[in-house]
Amino acid sequence: MFESAELGHKIDKATYDKEVPKLREALLDAQFDLAEKARFPVIILVGGVDGAGRGETVNLLNEWMDPRFIQTHGMGEPSDEEMERPMMWRFWRALPPKGKIGVFLGSWYTWPILNRAMGRTKAAELDQSLERAKRLEKMLTDEGALIIKFWLHLSKEKQEARLRALEKNPKTRWRVTKRDWERFKRYDKFLTIHESVIRHTSTAESPWIVVEGADARYRSLTIGKVILEALRKRLAEAEKKKETAIRAAPLLPPIDKLNILETLDLTQKLEKKKFEAELEKYQGKLALLTRHEKFKDITVIAVFEGNDAAGKGGSIRRIASALEARQYQIVPIAAPTEEERAQPYLWRFWRHIPRKGRVTIFDRSWYGRVLVERVEKFCSEADWMRAYGEINDFEAQLVRHQTVVVKFWLSISKEEQLRRFKEREKIGFKRFKITEEDWRNREKWDAYEQAVGDMVDRTSTEAAPWTLVEANDKNFARIKILKTLCQRIEAAMKQL
Amino acid sequence: MFESAELGHKIDKATYDKEVPKLREALLDAQFDLAEKARFPVIILVGGVDGAGRGETVNLLNEWMDPRFIQTHGMGEPSDEEMERPMMWRFWRALPPKGKIGVFLGSWYTWPILNRAMGRTKAAELDQSLERAKRLEKMLTDEGALIIKFWLHLSKEKQEARLRALEKNPKTRWRVTKRDWERFKRYDKFLTIHESVIRHTSTAESPWIVVEGADARYRSLTIGKVILEALRKRLAEAEKKKETAIRAAPLLPPIDKLNILETLDLTQKLEKKKFEAELEKYQGKLALLTRHEKFKDITVIAVFEGNDAAGKGGSIRRIASALEARQYQIVPIAAPTEEERAQPYLWRFWRHIPRKGRVTIFDRSWYGRVLVERVEKFCSEADWMRAYGEINDFEAQLVRHQTVVVKFWLSISKEEQLRRFKEREKIGFKRFKITEEDWRNREKWDAYEQAVGDMVDRTSTEAAPWTLVEANDKNFARIKILKTLCQRIEAAMKQL
Repeated sequence: MFESAELGHKIDKATYDKEVPKLREALLDAQFDLAEKARFPVIILVGGVDGAGRGETVNLLNEWMDPRFIQTHGMGEPSDEEMERPMMWRFWRALPPKGKIGVFLGSWYTWPILNRAMGRTKAAELDQSLERAKRLEKMLTDEGALIIKFWLHLSKEKQEARLRALEKNPKTRWRVTKRDWERFKRYDKFLTIHESVIRHTSTAESPWIVVEGADARYRSLTIGKVILEALRKRLAEAEKKKETAIRAAPLLPPIDKLNILETLDLTQKLEKKKFEAELEKYQGKLALLTRHEKFKDITVIAVFEGNDAAGKGGSIRRIASALEARQYQIVPIAAPTEEERAQPYLWRFWRHIPRKGRVTIFDRSWYGRVLVERVEKFCSEADWMRAYGEINDFEAQLVRHQTVVVKFWLSISKEEQLRRFKEREKIGFKRFKITEEDWRNREKWDAYEQAVGDMVDRTSTEAAPWTLVEANDKNFARIKILKTLCQRIEAAMKQL
Repeated sequence: MFESAELGHKIDKATYDKEVPKLREALLDAQFDLAEKARFPVIILVGGVDGAGRGETVNLLNEWMDPRFIQTHGMGEPSDEEMERPMMWRFWRALPPKGKIGVFLGSWYTWPILNRAMGRTKAAELDQSLERAKRLEKMLTDEGALIIKFWLHLSKEKQEARLRALEKNPKTRWRVTKRDWERFKRYDKFLTIHESVIRHTSTAESPWIVVEGADARYRSLTIGKVILEALRKRLAEAEKKKETAIRAAPLLPPIDKLNILETLDLTQKLEKKKFEAELEKYQGKLALLTRHEKFKDITVIAVFEGNDAAGKGGSIRRIASALEARQYQIVPIAAPTEEERAQPYLWRFWRHIPRKGRVTIFDRSWYGRVLVERVEKFCSEADWMRAYGEINDFEAQLVRHQTVVVKFWLSISKEEQLRRFKEREKIGFKRFKITEEDWRNREKWDAYEQAVGDMVDRTSTEAAPWTLVEANDKNFARIKILKTLCQRIEAAMKQL
């Protein structure tokens, strides 16, 4: 894998001095086009071995390009904030928006490689990390991102020489630490792992570009030219419209029209007295659970989806009132903001992922992708079809990080919805809750039912199951929700 | 994941009798279009739990459709022939060609699921199998195949009832074995695994379609309609031209023009006397190695690529003459046959994979995809870019099955090639060896050099490395090849 990067590539000074001004001008032009015309994000990963010039490369890119449209992220040891969230959270918050370039020194590959080299993980775990990285990159490129992955390589001899040279020079001596030499001793071990990483994650959409790091001029000019060509190619393509047809079997509605939602017994009721007793019981239980010592080690994410007017807000308030105000956050999801539209669709949910000991309640969620966006054709079939897998990946990451993911679908009948719509129109302070859009959505009742059925079938997992809530009776719904939430938290705390 | 498939879906007899004739006619029409106009292969996997109607479904499809264009494969226990080759070999040889439908009862999922449920493998191993399955399916869909994956599900209660009913009826009693009841005892364990399989391998390109298996009419009609809609959708799409632009950074030639091939010292020579002694030594060694008891447990696949007139044939003969005739096969790769063009490009290599204790020598190989097909633009950039990963996957499967994969690139200088071309034109019995095409290829020397450099960088792996052979001197080349081959076989036998 590293054959061409051990040949001793070199560029002489005269050539370099001649080429660089042209390259810089062209890079600035391309960057300008990217920002102004073709708005897609560019993600540049700079990985490689110690001493191969990763830091210099990042500095140079900042020097050569317009720093207003470039963001550099040194991904060293994660902060406390970051440690308390899933591993990928720090990368999500650093993703560049459309029109900008994000340069990552260290990436989602850094820790899996280090952990494997230090013997902290097994080969199969490394493979799993790499598959996750591939799925992440596939999602990003499917969302339109251009990913350029550089791997700066040095042969064993060259790395040793480089470290010695840095040590010799009083100006650079500080850069070589004991850790660098310790890692150098494991050069061969690292090499095997690096090879495996590059082999497994060089996909057609985001291949690794291996660059020999020994000669600074060769390295810099190569990297600059690759970025330039990649930008130019994508800018030219962005002018054409992309075809998004997919070749899979279509998802059909059940031929006997028997949808999972229709099997719910919506007549279930809880009379007032019983309700009040149960409410007190489960709110009390929730209060105790969330104040328990062990709760500090878990995170709770509750998702509320449901028909319009199904009573999501009321249910959420019954949960919130049992929690400490500092402990929870309610995130209502409406149309995405401009900032959010400049990012992959999951970005706006990642940004709200809480740290440990906290509860975040999403009033509507990432499931909009496979519900409203699917039904209203806001995204293509290919986009919502891949979303099931992307969402499962996303939730699996949360669950791996001791997060309790509780998902509620609040279901009411078409008749009950009509009754509530009319009631809302009559009552002044509730009138704001009913819009033209609600009436329009209602006309697509069947299409939404199919979308909900497919959603449950494809995203109700052992780790993050859906709970369908019969919500014609608000009291019944609220208790079922509180009870489910308590059970899930209790189960998670027992597993600690 | 199985929510909608436990609802008790049913279709009454009257509806069924009315729908089936229409469906059958439409299916036959679609099948005819597939065979005549839009030629792509259709792969239908029928998986699911025991008693859910997998066998009946396959029989029914054969009854409903035109059996001339359908091939059914019951993938039970692998045969001796199959056990001696990598797991996927049996599927490759069963793939339907373009225009036909292959129905698989049991698939690449069957054994990974069983092995995991029986505790023979760990969770991480199952994950790895699933990732391999995903990569295989991605490759097949990238190559144009339509994959439809059915999962027939039964709830625990329904499965038990079904097994009991079969047992009660004297006509079907034989179908329920002790093994079925043993598996039933592990229903919950299987369910967890099935869920994981369906979640991980439901991609946008080839999602699982979960079908409740209890009611035969519902099951049959659903499956028939899904197949019909999938065929219609793809047939409609096939009329449009598919866009194959990829969004990755382009592979550029090294900016200092230093290609790995140019670093070879082509002046290396072996004088006649030394050559003869070495030839005797290494041919003798190879003869002994391949007759060794342990050789029965490994397979050798040797790949020869190189410049035109670099001496591949002569080198191959020097290997062959050390082997027993029954033991080896030489596969010359020319333009694909019609049968081969109707299959994914790797198919014609899979068909030649030998069993254990055998040697297969490929005179040119699957690397044509990233060499001649890339340079001559016989395939799109997207196609050859994904080929690196597909080839690495392919070779990794061989290596996992104790196959020694030895790959030689025979390199001669441009001048030496000219000399040999001219010589061939002069000598009568060698004249057939030089064609117009050889002269044309020569004009693209630089493009081929870049392609070879990228090929080595991207497919020389620890498990299946490239050996670059300096071949200006035929004797030197032949000995280097024989020596490398002996070393690799020796190393593999030591590891047994």
